[in-house]
Amino acid sequence: MPQYLSTREEGFDARFTDLLGMKREDSPDVDAVVAEIIADVRTRGDAALIELTERFDRFSLTPESLAFTPEEIAAEIAKVPDAERAALELAAERIRAYHARQMPEDQRWSDASGAELGWRWGPVSAAGLYVPGGLASYPSSVLMNAIPAKVAGVERLVVVCPTPGGVVNPLVLLAAQIAGVDTVYRVGGAQAIAALAYGTQTIAPVDKITGPGNAFVAAAKRRVFGRVGIDMIAGPSEILVIADGTGDPDWIALDLMSQAEHDESAQAILITTDAEFGQAVARAVEARLETLERRAIAGVSWRDFGAVIVVRDLDEAAELSNRVAPEHLELCVADPDALSEKITHAGAIFLGAYTPEAIGDYVGGPNHVLPTARSARFSSGLSVLDFLKRTTLAKMSPGALRAIGPAAECLAISESLEAHGLSVRARLDALNEGEE
Amino acid sequence: MPQYLSTREEGFDARFTDLLGMKREDSPDVDAVVAEIIADVRTRGDAALIELTERFDRFSLTPESLAFTPEEIAAEIAKVPDAERAALELAAERIRAYHARQMPEDQRWSDASGAELGWRWGPVSAAGLYVPGGLASYPSSVLMNAIPAKVAGVERLVVVCPTPGGVVNPLVLLAAQIAGVDTVYRVGGAQAIAALAYGTQTIAPVDKITGPGNAFVAAAKRRVFGRVGIDMIAGPSEILVIADGTGDPDWIALDLMSQAEHDESAQAILITTDAEFGQAVARAVEARLETLERRAIAGVSWRDFGAVIVVRDLDEAAELSNRVAPEHLELCVADPDALSEKITHAGAIFLGAYTPEAIGDYVGGPNHVLPTARSARFSSGLSVLDFLKRTTLAKMSPGALRAIGPAAECLAISESLEAHGLSVRARLDALNEGEE
Repeated sequence: MPQYLSTREEGFDARFTDLLGMKREDSPDVDAVVAEIIADVRTRGDAALIELTERFDRFSLTPESLAFTPEEIAAEIAKVPDAERAALELAAERIRAYHARQMPEDQRWSDASGAELGWRWGPVSAAGLYVPGGLASYPSSVLMNAIPAKVAGVERLVVVCPTPGGVVNPLVLLAAQIAGVDTVYRVGGAQAIAALAYGTQTIAPVDKITGPGNAFVAAAKRRVFGRVGIDMIAGPSEILVIADGTGDPDWIALDLMSQAEHDESAQAILITTDAEFGQAVARAVEARLETLERRAIAGVSWRDFGAVIVVRDLDEAAELSNRVAPEHLELCVADPDALSEKITHAGAIFLGAYTPEAIGDYVGGPNHVLPTARSARFSSGLSVLDFLKRTTLAKMSPGALRAIGPAAECLAISESLEAHGLSVRARLDALNEGEE
Repeated sequence: MPQYLSTREEGFDARFTDLLGMKREDSPDVDAVVAEIIADVRTRGDAALIELTERFDRFSLTPESLAFTPEEIAAEIAKVPDAERAALELAAERIRAYHARQMPEDQRWSDASGAELGWRWGPVSAAGLYVPGGLASYPSSVLMNAIPAKVAGVERLVVVCPTPGGVVNPLVLLAAQIAGVDTVYRVGGAQAIAALAYGTQTIAPVDKITGPGNAFVAAAKRRVFGRVGIDMIAGPSEILVIADGTGDPDWIALDLMSQAEHDESAQAILITTDAEFGQAVARAVEARLETLERRAIAGVSWRDFGAVIVVRDLDEAAELSNRVAPEHLELCVADPDALSEKITHAGAIFLGAYTPEAIGDYVGGPNHVLPTARSARFSSGLSVLDFLKRTTLAKMSPGALRAIGPAAECLAISESLEAHGLSVRARLDALNEGEE
């Protein structure tokens, strides 16, 4: 049974705060193991990578077979049915079009002092994308990570993906090809992250690592952060639906289940102004849970972390939603645009009854890598900005230095940084001498 | 003695690689202590904060005196000389003008399928800025951190600053006031970071924490990352100067020393096409090291980590600089703009002889919080973007769902995510029924 809350009930605030604070993930402490794996790959390179792959993935590699060859990729991709290929291509095209609009502009200007200022964006040179093996090996995630990198202009883009027992998902290889990935390596786990961060004899190091993974991968990313850039450490998925009772309860039940089916730790919350509608959605969920393929997973998620919250009005709904700061927010209300204006914290908003969250997972265009665990309060989904960095520019004319240099010198002296001050003063003195 | 390298010498590449890989920082392992401090503040709130401040800062606080009162601030600020106040105000105005240009635009559009797409930027609600106490208590850093937050629209902006023995730098309080900081708390160390991340009875939690600090502060920031957003973990400062021999060797010597004086672990590198000019700069450094107030610190930095590298031409200089990916890059050459085009990785570029790096530390306008330790390969200096987050928007019309929904369903099924597929299918079926 999910939780039922109402803002009209006494003690609501305490119950809602408890819901917000629920610990949904029990991350095993794998940090010591991961530290060893990273040190091993750093020291022994390919040899360590191959040994660890043998041990964890029961699969023998050589330095030559670390990467898929073009022939191997072609053979795997040939297995993909036409419909799936077409769907992936449509998704890629839409994701590319959306992310192309994110490219920021360079600026350069002169101000009143005569100073020329500006900045310039440029891509990271090389990026590595982690793709999980097995069940969570999602071709859609390959597109969502790889396309922004390519749009940003990343020159070398590689994928690492474990292939336990030698088995790979052909759709993953096809998605990598469609997205423009240069090389796919048959390695995974913390050892693959170490190889990307430090390089081995065969795998050149990258500057940025993105992509989801298990606890070992997450711990390894946290550890190499600083040596390379990483994206966020993703937690279990979440959806919050705000409904005014105008929609079909079964649609909303399916939307809730589409997050619940990801993971027993996923969280699906319905906030509604209509208590009866809330009951109807809950009944529809129960009915769907009879037959869904992933009913075991979705059922546990709904029972342990699901919630139906009845509110007085949509303002209250928006306010509660902002406190949750959900990864995915669906506005299934008569005027979703008006309600959207009141939302301050959410990873992605899906407006109206015809925008199920699943559209955003695949073909909408926006990225499906989004901030979880209330981090939408301070962070954003993956974008081209994650694969770009900005260099600031400053160029002083003699006049500009005369205008603002003395203030710099004054502040340097007040901070007891004499050389800072002298570096400005030496130039000012030369300019003044030149004038005499 | 700094290192002297030349690309014409045999073995250059190995020596340069060694220079790149030099370990400049020996971070003490304070993680266990920090974990305890955070747990203590999380459990006991103000009481823990006050006890830890008593222990580390030899200073007694009560919940009422945690924050400076407006009267206390006014009394401290009254001590600041007019020249310093004017310099801070000029700096603030210039930093504000530069960062205001960084505000990104929202977008919303419809595509050919009838899908409405877009995104919206919004500020984090509350941010906390760490300001070190004692010698490294720089008012300029208060401006550089606080102004981008205020430009971004952060509603509540607080400063934490240890006041060992009760002593505070009046310039820090003035900078906070000029920048629009709401409250300044007299706490520091890992305990202050814990208070910002988790809140106490007196200090409300924030969403984002920025600002420099010692090893305890850095470890605490790393630990609370995820609970709140953090800026980068800064390493010791670096400068790389590329010179063609047209400038004054003493100016460049002072620029090199302006980083070296920060920290014994700072690094100053000169790359020049003119070997004799390189010698002249090195002599000028030795001469300055006779008299500089911070000669002890700057001397150790220059001896242990300084380098003069002679190259064949400016192309080679740019290539080496890109491998370093320096925090600060000065181009003291005849045509700095042309050379700048060849730079792919640098935190900030200072163009031409009249732009000493110190201008950028105070009054140039660009931020002085910049990526260190080669992280300019993948990250940028602090900006308004660090205090904003983006929410993506998607709204499907029935027609858009018909056009792209089937592809989403197909991919959902291929990923064994049935509920995802059904959430799309249920709507498509209803639309089709409606048509019949």
